[in-house]
Amino acid sequence: MYSQDIIDGIVEKALRSQSFDREPQNLYRPVGYMLGLGGKHLRPRLCVTTYNLFNDRIDDRIIFPALALETFHQFTLIHDDIMDNSPTRRGQPTVYALYGTNNAILSGDAMNILAYQYLAGAPSHLVGDALKLFNEISLKVCEGQQLDMDFEDQAVITMDEYMEMIALKTGVLISGAVKMGALLAEIPCDTVDALARYGMQAGLGFQIADDYLDTFGDEKIFGKPIGGDIVNNKKTWLLVECQRRASESEKKKLADLLKLDESHREEKIEGVRNLYISLGVREGADKAIMACYAKALEALDEARLSPEGRERMVILADQMLHREK
Amino acid sequence: MYSQDIIDGIVEKALRSQSFDREPQNLYRPVGYMLGLGGKHLRPRLCVTTYNLFNDRIDDRIIFPALALETFHQFTLIHDDIMDNSPTRRGQPTVYALYGTNNAILSGDAMNILAYQYLAGAPSHLVGDALKLFNEISLKVCEGQQLDMDFEDQAVITMDEYMEMIALKTGVLISGAVKMGALLAEIPCDTVDALARYGMQAGLGFQIADDYLDTFGDEKIFGKPIGGDIVNNKKTWLLVECQRRASESEKKKLADLLKLDESHREEKIEGVRNLYISLGVREGADKAIMACYAKALEALDEARLSPEGRERMVILADQMLHREK
Repeated sequence: MYSQDIIDGIVEKALRSQSFDREPQNLYRPVGYMLGLGGKHLRPRLCVTTYNLFNDRIDDRIIFPALALETFHQFTLIHDDIMDNSPTRRGQPTVYALYGTNNAILSGDAMNILAYQYLAGAPSHLVGDALKLFNEISLKVCEGQQLDMDFEDQAVITMDEYMEMIALKTGVLISGAVKMGALLAEIPCDTVDALARYGMQAGLGFQIADDYLDTFGDEKIFGKPIGGDIVNNKKTWLLVECQRRASESEKKKLADLLKLDESHREEKIEGVRNLYISLGVREGADKAIMACYAKALEALDEARLSPEGRERMVILADQMLHREK
Repeated sequence: MYSQDIIDGIVEKALRSQSFDREPQNLYRPVGYMLGLGGKHLRPRLCVTTYNLFNDRIDDRIIFPALALETFHQFTLIHDDIMDNSPTRRGQPTVYALYGTNNAILSGDAMNILAYQYLAGAPSHLVGDALKLFNEISLKVCEGQQLDMDFEDQAVITMDEYMEMIALKTGVLISGAVKMGALLAEIPCDTVDALARYGMQAGLGFQIADDYLDTFGDEKIFGKPIGGDIVNNKKTWLLVECQRRASESEKKKLADLLKLDESHREEKIEGVRNLYISLGVREGADKAIMACYAKALEALDEARLSPEGRERMVILADQMLHREK
């Protein structure tokens, strides 16, 4: 088993070595721009790390499928940014803001196909299974984005609905990255399934942590303005839980705060944050993240990894769930 | 070998039996709507027919890859219609016009993935090759659409540029449908390549015929208003050839006609049509289609099919190139 630093280095090198300096430039330049914006590269790292728990030979047959996961993820971000009207990402203009909506649609489509091109690098006797898994993941991510959009038109959603949405939109791809690594390592099904459950819980916790940091994070560390979700009335774990806990009068107060427009930005953020704190929603989110962490570790136990292997996956779960950015 | 009617019936039945009555409905309803709009279903018919030249056992292992081609094609139409601002298709509202742009983007993405799900139905020992072929086709179609958009900003393009664009945007997928059928029939490479060349020439001729019918077709048979390409200044075979043939004064006349707006619709169509006729562009298009037809038949000879097989493919080329709609 390689150290996490070595694995991360392999993933970074593989991502950097992909060139999109090809014709037609208007199609491929946005692809290179998007992949160049950086990010945590969590999904390919999870995929290669999981594979490396069982196989020390890290070559293109695992690296390319790992790149497929990242490329697919970044493609969804390009299209999500159009749908969400988001002008910036990681402090830079989004693809549609820089290159126009039509180019962002088409370059995104090309990236989805490029992801499948990377996936075709899986060993030939496994490519059929890898393809089926990848399709299943990808379609569920679309379903999650659809639910997210559907929820925009609903004043209140239940916690179950919220959890289903983030399971599809975020959990499935993180779980799928772990599962892809396990599948390509050709380990027994029950171990694959246990690792996939670990990935799902880590993914759910990762998303709740994301919601948490957007409201309670440190702007300097988080890297984007705090309170964006509140300003945009986004259905986050915090908002859904707040609506669930609020009395009638608090519900009224929350609804009034949500009606405030951009000119009352700070008042809105402060008001909603205070309501989250006074109703125990902030602490509740902490507990929810811890619960995901505990379930992730339970699933790890069922995977019966070596002590070193287990430790590695615990550290990754820590990075995903106990993070400041 | 089955009759073309039987093959067409198999394809139609397979397409009709796909249900998209699933959750989330906002994601899948537009998919069902788009596939329900009908069409020639040329690509799956070509795929299954080519396969049937060599193999009489038509089952899901060829039908699903054929559905993949149609589903991919229809997905590109959904996104193209957004990019081209086209409110109607086959006399019905386009997906984005009916369901909104965001839903059309996301449902299109889902359809692209659904296409890969169908493709995964290929026999397991061939799925890797089928995936590589499908990726290559799909990416080139995106490149063709990008060139088409790039050309919108250029006053004049060369005939070589036009031919490259339609080879990518139309030829590759029609050729790819034939190639997919041949690949899955596991025939020798040189036969696959000859059939692919047949498909490319048929695809090029098909597109030029499409351009021709948009200007010189019979509205009642063609099924949409004649002259749309002229009104929208679309870079068609006719326009590119006209610009190539025109004298300086005719170029000036053409440029003036192209500047006419929607309020001079009929005047614009009539003026450009007359220029096409007087410069021999109309006849030139006929000859160009015949040249594609001849090259398609030449490629067929190199495929060394049985007389019945050859006859079948000649009839399909006839349908594609000598059509009135």
